[in-house]
Amino acid sequence: MKTIQLNSRPVGIPKLSDFKFVNKEKPTLADGEILLKANYISVDPYLRGRMMEGKSYVAPFELNKVMSSGMIAEVVESKLNGFSKGDHVSGMMEWKEFQTSKGEGLMKVDGSHVSLSVYLGVLGMTGLTAYLGLTEIGKPKAGETVVVSGAAGAVGSVVGQIAKIKGCRVVGIAGSDEKVEELKSKYGFDAGINYKTTTNMTQAIAECCPEGVDVYFDNVGGEISDAVMMNVNRFARIIVCGAISMYNATSVPMGPRVQPILIKNSALMQGFIVSNYTEKFGVAIPQLAKYVQEGKIISTETIVKGFDNVPQAFINLFEGKNKGKMIVEIEA
Amino acid sequence: MKTIQLNSRPVGIPKLSDFKFVNKEKPTLADGEILLKANYISVDPYLRGRMMEGKSYVAPFELNKVMSSGMIAEVVESKLNGFSKGDHVSGMMEWKEFQTSKGEGLMKVDGSHVSLSVYLGVLGMTGLTAYLGLTEIGKPKAGETVVVSGAAGAVGSVVGQIAKIKGCRVVGIAGSDEKVEELKSKYGFDAGINYKTTTNMTQAIAECCPEGVDVYFDNVGGEISDAVMMNVNRFARIIVCGAISMYNATSVPMGPRVQPILIKNSALMQGFIVSNYTEKFGVAIPQLAKYVQEGKIISTETIVKGFDNVPQAFINLFEGKNKGKMIVEIEA
Repeated sequence: MKTIQLNSRPVGIPKLSDFKFVNKEKPTLADGEILLKANYISVDPYLRGRMMEGKSYVAPFELNKVMSSGMIAEVVESKLNGFSKGDHVSGMMEWKEFQTSKGEGLMKVDGSHVSLSVYLGVLGMTGLTAYLGLTEIGKPKAGETVVVSGAAGAVGSVVGQIAKIKGCRVVGIAGSDEKVEELKSKYGFDAGINYKTTTNMTQAIAECCPEGVDVYFDNVGGEISDAVMMNVNRFARIIVCGAISMYNATSVPMGPRVQPILIKNSALMQGFIVSNYTEKFGVAIPQLAKYVQEGKIISTETIVKGFDNVPQAFINLFEGKNKGKMIVEIEA
Repeated sequence: MKTIQLNSRPVGIPKLSDFKFVNKEKPTLADGEILLKANYISVDPYLRGRMMEGKSYVAPFELNKVMSSGMIAEVVESKLNGFSKGDHVSGMMEWKEFQTSKGEGLMKVDGSHVSLSVYLGVLGMTGLTAYLGLTEIGKPKAGETVVVSGAAGAVGSVVGQIAKIKGCRVVGIAGSDEKVEELKSKYGFDAGINYKTTTNMTQAIAECCPEGVDVYFDNVGGEISDAVMMNVNRFARIIVCGAISMYNATSVPMGPRVQPILIKNSALMQGFIVSNYTEKFGVAIPQLAKYVQEGKIISTETIVKGFDNVPQAFINLFEGKNKGKMIVEIEA
């Protein structure tokens, strides 16, 4: 069976050669274990950080060791009470076609009403990040203006839809005219900006936000965020959730200092990591499921097929090739 | 009588020629008014912002109009109920030797137990800024490490003393060996760093903060803050109170982007303006007065004498010539 190891720490945008496929024996099962077959593998921008050395909020991947991420797997054999053959589970798992587990950190998921892959998206870390980042830090009030960067991505598209549910004016920033069109037609955003074809982003944001920006959900950092910051209102809240524009930087990224803007506007900027909010998951997941059932949140996935394509699917995130959640489906 | 007007909008550090002394008739009193004689004038770094055009949290000064700031004045004549000759008042007033007022925004102050100037310092906006910025945003817990920049200044020296009262390890950054020595010997800071003689600030902060930085009270911005940010802990709180290093900038100040640090540490950065917290003044002022009475907060002032010296005293702030609160005393 195949596994995927970290072959080298990337410099700049990751390359296929930074990953290594290694064949291993299919594991055998001990008492108290389950044998899991990978169904869906989530590839996420934050994994770029784990490919580097150095202290962060999650431990770095080790060279020549198997990588991991959020996954959905099927129980194909069970010697563990509470898990039966045919069950599906969600959790952090290793990039292996098969693996054993003692069940720790795994949650059983039900694919009978929704696609199993949704548990990596709207009903998984993606949806939780969008919902909890927006509500816990952003605290949007009806009538306020919410700007989302990376708006057509997995988290951004959900953030925008939740902000609409909350009664906000919602403006999304994305990287193609097609994506911008979908923000409006599919997700109900009030306006969208294609940052790749807009020369003056500060002005474009001002035009889309005639009453200024109250909440900025930042998935990208860099110059896009500089332009949003030029438009924030008094008491603005900025959720610093991702910085995909900086993940591949090879030197310390420089930009205009934010302190004068924060003082002038009594604004708040806070780093958001969903794993700090686990005690809220129990309330958030049913709420997200309700929104999905009611048709208030549309879940979008870019599905890539085949275990062999995990590295390329990950690399494609940095070129904006996904719409919504990027997921690799392992064929049966 | 003399008044001080804004003569030109400064470029870089303000010059004496940016101010203009204009003689006016001493005002006469109408019914419902009091005549005020200036006693003490507060000069503060934030006034630099008001000398520029453009929207901010306080209206800019107008060219060829009298400037203003926090002042203490004596009532020398009264045609207003509630105010008597000989009373002293604190509030925002104009830079005039004499002025009339209808009493709006003025607070009577008692100079019988403390120097009247203290109502511009520890028992005024300075002390409130230190206390409310630290407690409302910083929320320091006993055992945590608090770093203060501009630590020998009006706000910084009070922040450090309050952080000590809260049971924190307190590290101050200041601009001379003498100031650093006083941080420790006079205000009880645990350690101090002279940024002017320290080549590697990031390392110096790491050495003074072996358990990292939990709260950073930022009065200065710029490279000093970059170095503190390299040392912040998970869940750090950064109070962005002042940015004196940037107030005289003639182009947009650039620096390392903070977003990756905020994400990695789930850290919070928030702009602080004391006037957003007026509903807390009634609790904060008696608390500060109690600390002063108990000897837990030492109030330091740099007193410059003479109305003619207001502009130079203000300019001196940007060269760090003050220790504690810079105040101009108007001779009788």
